[in-house]
Amino acid sequence: MSEFGLYTKFTAHDGQRDVLVQILLEAADSMALVDGCDLYVVNIPDDEPNGVWVTEIWRDSVAHDASLSLDTAMALIQRARPLIARVNQIKLRPVGGKGI
Amino acid sequence: MSEFGLYTKFTAHDGQRDVLVQILLEAADSMALVDGCDLYVVNIPDDEPNGVWVTEIWRDSVAHDASLSLDTAMALIQRARPLIARVNQIKLRPVGGKGI
Repeated sequence: MSEFGLYTKFTAHDGQRDVLVQILLEAADSMALVDGCDLYVVNIPDDEPNGVWVTEIWRDSVAHDASLSLDTAMALIQRARPLIARVNQIKLRPVGGKGI
Repeated sequence: MSEFGLYTKFTAHDGQRDVLVQILLEAADSMALVDGCDLYVVNIPDDEPNGVWVTEIWRDSVAHDASLSLDTAMALIQRARPLIARVNQIKLRPVGGKGI
């Protein structure tokens, strides 16, 4: 595999997580037709009241980079930005597994 | 969804990561027939020479817990344990997305 993976943790401002989760679920919906996006899952951690983790797997990093400049993505990023206090990201190389 | 997700980071002892990755890929193969396992991906992070991350999504936490006592899983855990210096785990509730 030459796939590209990401774990992205968004920490929302107090009281803003639920709205942020909805925007990220819209982003997930908008991925349905995006070529090269194999996985985009929105997750709520069990121990961080303001946290949201997004798990992504892409055909390669080029496909991921290209997705960020889609009109839909840029509009969603603009709506999400004021809700977000911090972003942490772990870049991964998926080497195999089940379900992808 | 009432699904259950996990990011598990294994930190291998120096020089042991490649062997650990192979064992985790065997674990991924053994998941093929395990009921309730929707995703099991082995990933190498780009900035930690001894790290391996496993991304899992299960139908629910009961299915995940049950998988740990399968003979194959127990044998793999026993082989992997001496290679591992540390384990960190993030428990997640997947709320939606693409690819699962």
